[in-house]
Amino acid sequence: MTTALPPVLHTARVSVDPLLRKAVGRLDPATQRICEYHFGWRNADGSPGRGGGKALRPAMVLLSAGCAEADVEQAVPAAAAVELVHNFSLLHDDVMDGDTARRHRPTAWTVFGRPGALLAGDALLALSGEVLLESGSPNAAAAARALAAATRTLIAGQAADLDFEHRREIGLDDCLQMAHDKTAILLGSASSIGALLVGAPTETVVRLHAFGTELGMAFQLVDDLLGLWGDPEVTGKPVLSDLRARKKSAPVVHALSSPAPAAGRLRALYDQPEPLTEAQVQQAAALVEEAGSAEWARTECDRRLGSALEYLPRGGGDTTQSLTELAEFIIRRTH
Amino acid sequence: MTTALPPVLHTARVSVDPLLRKAVGRLDPATQRICEYHFGWRNADGSPGRGGGKALRPAMVLLSAGCAEADVEQAVPAAAAVELVHNFSLLHDDVMDGDTARRHRPTAWTVFGRPGALLAGDALLALSGEVLLESGSPNAAAAARALAAATRTLIAGQAADLDFEHRREIGLDDCLQMAHDKTAILLGSASSIGALLVGAPTETVVRLHAFGTELGMAFQLVDDLLGLWGDPEVTGKPVLSDLRARKKSAPVVHALSSPAPAAGRLRALYDQPEPLTEAQVQQAAALVEEAGSAEWARTECDRRLGSALEYLPRGGGDTTQSLTELAEFIIRRTH
Repeated sequence: MTTALPPVLHTARVSVDPLLRKAVGRLDPATQRICEYHFGWRNADGSPGRGGGKALRPAMVLLSAGCAEADVEQAVPAAAAVELVHNFSLLHDDVMDGDTARRHRPTAWTVFGRPGALLAGDALLALSGEVLLESGSPNAAAAARALAAATRTLIAGQAADLDFEHRREIGLDDCLQMAHDKTAILLGSASSIGALLVGAPTETVVRLHAFGTELGMAFQLVDDLLGLWGDPEVTGKPVLSDLRARKKSAPVVHALSSPAPAAGRLRALYDQPEPLTEAQVQQAAALVEEAGSAEWARTECDRRLGSALEYLPRGGGDTTQSLTELAEFIIRRTH
Repeated sequence: MTTALPPVLHTARVSVDPLLRKAVGRLDPATQRICEYHFGWRNADGSPGRGGGKALRPAMVLLSAGCAEADVEQAVPAAAAVELVHNFSLLHDDVMDGDTARRHRPTAWTVFGRPGALLAGDALLALSGEVLLESGSPNAAAAARALAAATRTLIAGQAADLDFEHRREIGLDDCLQMAHDKTAILLGSASSIGALLVGAPTETVVRLHAFGTELGMAFQLVDDLLGLWGDPEVTGKPVLSDLRARKKSAPVVHALSSPAPAAGRLRALYDQPEPLTEAQVQQAAALVEEAGSAEWARTECDRRLGSALEYLPRGGGDTTQSLTELAEFIIRRTH
């Protein structure tokens, strides 16, 4: 992928990292080490790392505070809190899902063991409340409460995801609800909690939350498409990995429930007891295309992006522009 | 054990359960079911359960609010929050430690699988912040912040506990620090957060926190003694189970580091590669006694209880009396 990163991501990383590092620095040495590895600040041997994620959520938090015409610095604790919740969920999901790679590195549990990775996730969740409540904002309690509620929804999404593995039949509605709970809700939080913390009017907070949630749905569809046809260089996962694992992502569920003849053939591949051969994985991908489900996902993604942008406060000037660019950047990851 | 339960425990259970059930009722159905099982509200088949723990921590929360001469009802959200954090840690610790029994029933992970039990723990931690911040108290943010910090310490304690399993040498100081972090800190929170939430003077909050922390140290020593010589009817575990697992509890570490000849013989048993035979387990128990470490644990337990009671606010009347009775009840569990 050659798309340049929007500068707001770098700015957000620089703004939020000192507070994140300070928070993680309060943990016991063993848990701290695991968190530092997970964040990409250190390698497994303790040497300095190359850094981690793209700071997408912190950038959204800071921009949302900017939309409320506040000094974005005031929203840094909210940016750190959302990033902590996001990373709590990554650490735990990797253990539950048995995923062995993240951000092109071995996942924390494969390096430090499951108990350590679980405790590290627990610690990040506890810290998220602490950093927000220490912000000194009169709206800190409201922001922490909203973030805790979002975390509860995030957990519901992961519970649904685990449940889907054991279910033969999943409707597209279930699948989209899961995407909402597991992915979109935290982007909704990220894009509104900064405004909430700096005391923006309720209408602004609500609009920004809807913006982030719609964007989150688009974001998940992009992820689903990347899980099918993503460049391994970008995703860090083999091409078609979601099909290989017979994951029921939205495009796949769309294909399985389509009236096209491809649906039945895809169903047979998903139901067969043996692991899929490489030829069958390729065939499954072709069937998802044939059912029109890749096209559906791309169209739905664009529709969600359009809907998200409609929610942005009018006349927000530069900040609205930056949020728009950030949203478009996220979607450009694939098409 | 024939000691009657202090009535404050029943009162606390009745006060806190409706809020706990309401909070758990917000979770997705799968996670809710696991939490309801864990709390003893339901059996694995969904039928009504016989209830769970003794409500020790909720009782301490409510009494601590009473010490501040406040309406204890105001402290119910704090009581629920502490109980939620406590149960989060039980759910996760059982997964990490591989424990299969709790409160005379199979642990949640053995019934619902590890991922479900982990998510249930995550959910309880998120809910703990929510219920506290929804209390409407002007001190809710301060209380939530204190509880999050205590949770961080709890995690440090569990990290130390996991680390101890891989270490041959553990000093008594390390061991007592672990007991402080893993057990005492949450009793410190339980005995002060009610007062904090209702706006008691700082000195009262600090004294109550010290009371709970000292009591927590005594509580852990009682647990250690029960893990050695506890009646299986009471503990739900086989007698001498901690020795069988070669757990390095405080009495054992005290014995291992004592100058008595028993120390060397106990060390040899703890170091041998093969599992201990039943005769060797009995021998290890005799060596802990011979080193004077059972006696040390009982004396230390009484000393900590005495120290705890010294911190109780003077002239607190009935509430102080109830806290004293509760503290003594906890310690009477074994001697």
